Amino acid sequence: MNNPIVTLTTDFGSEDSYVGAMKGVILGICPWAQLVDISHAVPAQDLVKAALLLEECSPCFPPGTVHVCVVDPLVGTDRPAVALSTPQAFFVGPDNGIFGLVWRAACEMWAAEELSVVRLTESRFHRDPVCPTFHGRDIFAPVAAHLARGTPVAELGPPVKTVRFAPIPAPEQQADGSMLGQVLSADRFGNCLTNLSRQDLAAVGPQPSLWVKAGDIVLGEIRATYAAVEPGEPLALIGSNGRLELAVRNGSFGAVTGLSPGALVVVCRGD
Amino acid sequence: MNNPIVTLTTDFGSEDSYVGAMKGVILGICPWAQLVDISHAVPAQDLVKAALLLEECSPCFPPGTVHVCVVDPLVGTDRPAVALSTPQAFFVGPDNGIFGLVWRAACEMWAAEELSVVRLTESRFHRDPVCPTFHGRDIFAPVAAHLARGTPVAELGPPVKTVRFAPIPAPEQQADGSMLGQVLSADRFGNCLTNLSRQDLAAVGPQPSLWVKAGDIVLGEIRATYAAVEPGEPLALIGSNGRLELAVRNGSFGAVTGLSPGALVVVCRGD
Amino acid sequence: MNNPIVTLTTDFGSEDSYVGAMKGVILGICPWAQLVDISHAVPAQDLVKAALLLEECSPCFPPGTVHVCVVDPLVGTDRPAVALSTPQAFFVGPDNGIFGLVWRAACEMWAAEELSVVRLTESRFHRDPVCPTFHGRDIFAPVAAHLARGTPVAELGPPVKTVRFAPIPAPEQQADGSMLGQVLSADRFGNCLTNLSRQDLAAVGPQPSLWVKAGDIVLGEIRATYAAVEPGEPLALIGSNGRLELAVRNGSFGAVTGLSPGALVVVCRGD
Repeated sequence: MNNPIVTLTTDFGSEDSYVGAMKGVILGICPWAQLVDISHAVPAQDLVKAALLLEECSPCFPPGTVHVCVVDPLVGTDRPAVALSTPQAFFVGPDNGIFGLVWRAACEMWAAEELSVVRLTESRFHRDPVCPTFHGRDIFAPVAAHLARGTPVAELGPPVKTVRFAPIPAPEQQADGSMLGQVLSADRFGNCLTNLSRQDLAAVGPQPSLWVKAGDIVLGEIRATYAAVEPGEPLALIGSNGRLELAVRNGSFGAVTGLSPGALVVVCRGD
Repeated sequence: MNNPIVTLTTDFGSEDSYVGAMKGVILGICPWAQLVDISHAVPAQDLVKAALLLEECSPCFPPGTVHVCVVDPLVGTDRPAVALSTPQAFFVGPDNGIFGLVWRAACEMWAAEELSVVRLTESRFHRDPVCPTFHGRDIFAPVAAHLARGTPVAELGPPVKTVRFAPIPAPEQQADGSMLGQVLSADRFGNCLTNLSRQDLAAVGPQPSLWVKAGDIVLGEIRATYAAVEPGEPLALIGSNGRLELAVRNGSFGAVTGLSPGALVVVCRGD
Repeated sequence: MNNPIVTLTTDFGSEDSYVGAMKGVILGICPWAQLVDISHAVPAQDLVKAALLLEECSPCFPPGTVHVCVVDPLVGTDRPAVALSTPQAFFVGPDNGIFGLVWRAACEMWAAEELSVVRLTESRFHRDPVCPTFHGRDIFAPVAAHLARGTPVAELGPPVKTVRFAPIPAPEQQADGSMLGQVLSADRFGNCLTNLSRQDLAAVGPQPSLWVKAGDIVLGEIRATYAAVEPGEPLALIGSNGRLELAVRNGSFGAVTGLSPGALVVVCRGD
């Protein structure tokens, strides 16, 4: 059997001891785990960014991978701690919306009886005592390590029906058939990710006929790759995660256009 | 036997090749080591921050873990290079104060005969030649890898009695029984860590009776968690590392109050 | 046999899902790979910095290590994707200059029949479909994982003769025997790396007689280590990578002198 993989996604940054403490706890319980950092640079308390990261990364990992995510503004309150189990992966963290996108994707892909969510109430899988400000180290890390060791998810606590969803705005189809979406986040290069999926675009019409506008900027048809336009020119394309993305070839869409998360994006038929 | 763990803590940043070079050297000597990054974002030459990181993280790792720490402003001088051995862990790096806190904690926890410090004089465990500006790659990484392989610490060089201590200010108890401490560092969220331990607080009085003031700001009693106050309000609590911490719920204590490392903190009896 | 090592060097940053996606793909194909981050903080599209990182790090890793590098401004164009094989390592990524320095070093060290470069045309080793904006995830990660599993490099595609070279300026020897070089990059501490190698210096004269000037600043003789000058004083020394480096003891050469990449450096005989 291969070593189990445990990934970590947090807003803890890389300056402090929080991530190292979590890794130490995991390796103390499951020394043969393979640890993988997804990101510790989630903006502080940014549930939407965390939800997007998990949605984008988790399908790339082999089945059985355990994804711990700790973006947890309500730590120390009675917000639930949960673990999700799908045929593809496990997810462990606070139930505050960060698992909404991966849960929705799992519900579309698998039968209900193959999925489960439990509340992490079985304290024998937690550290003792639990510090009320650091559930990452004292609840989520040890639970993830126990899952990596093979503990059945049902032992971790009682089942619940679903999880919360981060407030990601849904696209709206207009009376004229066009789809109104918005920019969700920008990456390091200034590429802007939107909330428009392939299905959202298909609801407007077949792709060669579609036309994209963002704010006041007409981007025209959806391109296959950055090189379809001249360096410095803006364009729209389907990003590597399957969502509509706005970019500038060899430049920053955000910097060139001044558009940022929240900016409106319209996709209509250009014919 | 499980794979040995080697952690790395440096001020090398993540832009350059220094960390990668160290990891390559470790894996060349001990290919089955499990490498774990604690942090490479220690502010340049900040011995106190390095000492705090090691103190906070190392107790979370399983026994036998090797912690390499390279924050080394005096590299190339005759400052000693050392390895520490305790029943819990090994530590490898320059003897400039970064190991002071973990050594003090070890001396409180274990008998003297279970502890040792050696100077790293046995050059057969170093790279050849040793670059005078990069002992991280040429001395500390290979020594850590040899410890991970099982080389006894006594083979690395002659024993020494103790290590240096980073200049972390000690709290001072006042004539009226109150304890005067200070802010040591701030984390990514703006939470301010102080030099006041649980024992320091106990010397003032039992916790429900204690009252905290930082600079001109009265924080009042010590809370159990952030949620004990309203969002945006400052509070004092015992942080996840056992020290008094100053925070703002869902905000940055540093930004809200203007207080930074060095600011004075007083704990007195409020009754 | 030890676990194969796969290192990653990119300009993807640590905020987004790109690096995590690549790691998931690698572990899906070769779950026993040991992943090592070199850097994900290469400045966006900086081919020279990527080439320098690979040159500096790769000699420290054990033979057989697979180095994936994705700094890829021309992704989606017909720029070739390549894998290099040497007795020391494999390299996988776009053929845009990032492998120029490691290839030149390999050609100096090994016989031609021990080296090979192939174009990555065999799509059975790629993900399907390949996203035209993310060859890191869909071509380079899976190819690296197949190399780590032991797939012969010749199966990946047809051989090509050489690779491209990043535009790293070559030092020029002047009529008076002095050598004219320049600053290539600065590290986190403000140390400035030059394009002058030990051989370049030897072409001017034996080291004790050499004299260094950078911009208008006379640095004088080449020192053994930072401690050879007073704190705050600038100096020239041979850096840990074998190139001439400009530094300020316990300070930043860049900040103190105002010199940055592109600044001219002259080495002449001081006697």
